Amino acid sequence: MTSNPVTFNPRVPELATQFIGTIFNDYDPRSYAPGADFLTRQEDRQQVSPTAIPAVGRPLAEATKELVDVLEHDSNLRHPRFFGFIPGPAQSVSWLGDVIATAYNPHASNWAQSPGASALEKQVIDWACEAAGISAPNRGGILVSGGSMANLTGLMAARESRVPLDQIPRAVVYTTEQTHSSVNKALRILGISHIRTLPVDDAFRMQPTVLRQAIEADKKEGLLPFAVVGTCGTTNTGAIDPLDAIADLCDEFDLWFHVDGAYGGSVVLSSRKADARGVERCDSMAWDGHKWLFQTYGLAMVLVKNRADLVRSFSAGGEYLQDVEGGSHNPDWWDMGPELTRPARAPRLWLTLQTVGTERLSQMIDSSISVAELFEKEIQSVEGISIVTPACHAIVTFTTGDEAKNVALAEYLRRHNIAGIWTTTLNGKNVLRLCTISPDETEEDMEALVKDIEKALKKIQL
Amino acid sequence: MTSNPVTFNPRVPELATQFIGTIFNDYDPRSYAPGADFLTRQEDRQQVSPTAIPAVGRPLAEATKELVDVLEHDSNLRHPRFFGFIPGPAQSVSWLGDVIATAYNPHASNWAQSPGASALEKQVIDWACEAAGISAPNRGGILVSGGSMANLTGLMAARESRVPLDQIPRAVVYTTEQTHSSVNKALRILGISHIRTLPVDDAFRMQPTVLRQAIEADKKEGLLPFAVVGTCGTTNTGAIDPLDAIADLCDEFDLWFHVDGAYGGSVVLSSRKADARGVERCDSMAWDGHKWLFQTYGLAMVLVKNRADLVRSFSAGGEYLQDVEGGSHNPDWWDMGPELTRPARAPRLWLTLQTVGTERLSQMIDSSISVAELFEKEIQSVEGISIVTPACHAIVTFTTGDEAKNVALAEYLRRHNIAGIWTTTLNGKNVLRLCTISPDETEEDMEALVKDIEKALKKIQL
Repeated sequence: MTSNPVTFNPRVPELATQFIGTIFNDYDPRSYAPGADFLTRQEDRQQVSPTAIPAVGRPLAEATKELVDVLEHDSNLRHPRFFGFIPGPAQSVSWLGDVIATAYNPHASNWAQSPGASALEKQVIDWACEAAGISAPNRGGILVSGGSMANLTGLMAARESRVPLDQIPRAVVYTTEQTHSSVNKALRILGISHIRTLPVDDAFRMQPTVLRQAIEADKKEGLLPFAVVGTCGTTNTGAIDPLDAIADLCDEFDLWFHVDGAYGGSVVLSSRKADARGVERCDSMAWDGHKWLFQTYGLAMVLVKNRADLVRSFSAGGEYLQDVEGGSHNPDWWDMGPELTRPARAPRLWLTLQTVGTERLSQMIDSSISVAELFEKEIQSVEGISIVTPACHAIVTFTTGDEAKNVALAEYLRRHNIAGIWTTTLNGKNVLRLCTISPDETEEDMEALVKDIEKALKKIQL
Repeated sequence: MTSNPVTFNPRVPELATQFIGTIFNDYDPRSYAPGADFLTRQEDRQQVSPTAIPAVGRPLAEATKELVDVLEHDSNLRHPRFFGFIPGPAQSVSWLGDVIATAYNPHASNWAQSPGASALEKQVIDWACEAAGISAPNRGGILVSGGSMANLTGLMAARESRVPLDQIPRAVVYTTEQTHSSVNKALRILGISHIRTLPVDDAFRMQPTVLRQAIEADKKEGLLPFAVVGTCGTTNTGAIDPLDAIADLCDEFDLWFHVDGAYGGSVVLSSRKADARGVERCDSMAWDGHKWLFQTYGLAMVLVKNRADLVRSFSAGGEYLQDVEGGSHNPDWWDMGPELTRPARAPRLWLTLQTVGTERLSQMIDSSISVAELFEKEIQSVEGISIVTPACHAIVTFTTGDEAKNVALAEYLRRHNIAGIWTTTLNGKNVLRLCTISPDETEEDMEALVKDIEKALKKIQL
């Protein structure tokens, strides 16, 4: 790169290598606080104050050191004992794939400019469609930056397929109380004002009879029902909506069936695949790489039954549709999603899948489910704790029966660097929640955690 | 990382270091075809066919080698003689910043979880607002994946600020024939059907008198004009709309003023800053990092006069607004843009700005402008070539006067690995186009290119 004196800083390779040496030799995620810091050290952290942008550049080694120091303040979501929210247990191989992709920096927007990045993306999308059981001959999809964008992309295709622009104010979508907030955000961007938030059953799932009544009532009102959002793995409890029954109703009323599988889409790879029965009948599906497929952040998939629906929604013109519908051509990515210039997101997932293999991947997801089940079983022996929702995929919720005590217990566990656990609300009541998608969680971790919770309960002061 | 056996592949550090050694020692962007390949070798490239995802994982070294081979098929947009579209002349320092950020993989969505990544993002946004002259006390912004998302984010804030959901079918936006297609795509996502594509003046700029007439006509029709999109650097010619005059009209009619500065926003850092006068009066502005700020792909900024407008558009609730409007609190990123989980995009731009410094950055942008001007001056001595639009920021267009000859000349230059040049259409006529934003382009490059064009003209067969 010596002939490239401006864009190439000659110290980059040395500092990159040095960084890699440091992070992989000295870094042990278990030695970090499992998510505790961002409460206990919140005040310190609000004072993180990087050096202001200077008029005259300073040495790369100095700035790099500061960058590392600043980033070390951030919480470590891949710690095996980080159980909050949906953790981010990224594989090191995913990081390597991204390091390589970013070095080439392809313009991953069309096949002509970036045939390599495009072929990788197509392969990953095909693999995911196959795994989800989407078998239509014109199936397809695209990689986007996360679940929010995946839901936006799928629901835009839904709106464009069913709702003329001047009918948007009449359009209605059906969700539940347990639908992720990103769906509401996407619908708001799309200009949809009628979002029906249906009540759920005892297992926090959509109720087909309630859905039918809501659709019929809206049609009677002269409104335009056009899509149902089913969730494959809710964030609160891991519940999967009755996807097959929802698909039946979508068929009956000619509604678009979008599945939000951001977290739980990976269940299709596990031995619990049957729980997601019906997902293969979706018109569109969101499925994150950076959750239960162990990727670094900025990677989600949108899968669709018919890729012409994406092209119809996002291309500048309609001239591509003929080829798309014929299935003879790979449409350019810039015509299939909201972005034009796009980073190459496929390489890291491709490299992970190539080196892990689908069998081992299934085992890793099964293992996440097993440790949640083991925790559920063990925690019941602890006096003063009861299960609220049993292990469902990789999520368990439990309670002390008292909100203040729940909050104090979670805080104690975080403050003492035992586990990153937070509370959530179910049926108006506060509960403790564990999401165990890290493949590094062992049975020993879970057994030790239960003992730690037992001890902590005796120590917390209210 | 030895205690992390599943998510950590022990061969990663060695292979990463090996890759860095190879790419930085052997790689010279000038030895690659400057964008020619993706036409001349198009047939080969359609046959790029990576190994299918296996059931049993294969060795990381083997898969990594294949990944590198596949990515080497992609076009090299950072070659100093790649002048097509908007090139992607990423700095190696940007890559290093991303390598480090991705290794930590922070959940860059809120301040509590990721104070480090958040502080870097705030600093970069503040710096950009200052550079653009946006001085309002509650100014702000957010990083997104590219210009399309930046336009979507700014225009969503516009719609939410001015148009009730049930009035969307009446809402009107004003653009020109030269507005980038991503603006139309964003407006379509937002459900806007009335997009006025105004004719431009001789220099391809919006005409304030035409804009005024259009607004008045739409108001008379009972429609709801709500936003004007001004372009700071069109893709075709580098033209900047009369931003100050547009801002006056936006004030007069209470319209939202969005500036698409994806490419040309960087002019505010150059000695031509005066050309962008009025940009500081925008309500929102899109400005890409991965174009003329020399970043790897997946990095753009949205800047806003009032960050409450972003929070109002993207937060789940309104409870944050009080603090935002008071300016006492940094709102969480997940409440300010379309994404919830987000990769940390700030570190690479921060590291670039820290090590390049603002003075050198200005010089690099000025230099891009100078080489375009040098080319314009030199090419006029070539018989049979005339300038169509003079060097405007970093873009020049010229013609042989004949479409077939233009196309043949561009193709010759690409096929012979002389330069990556394509044609575009202006006023219905085909023209050759050069975009010279790479800071690696020298005066010698441009002088040699003019001579090469002269020679090529003699050789092309029609």
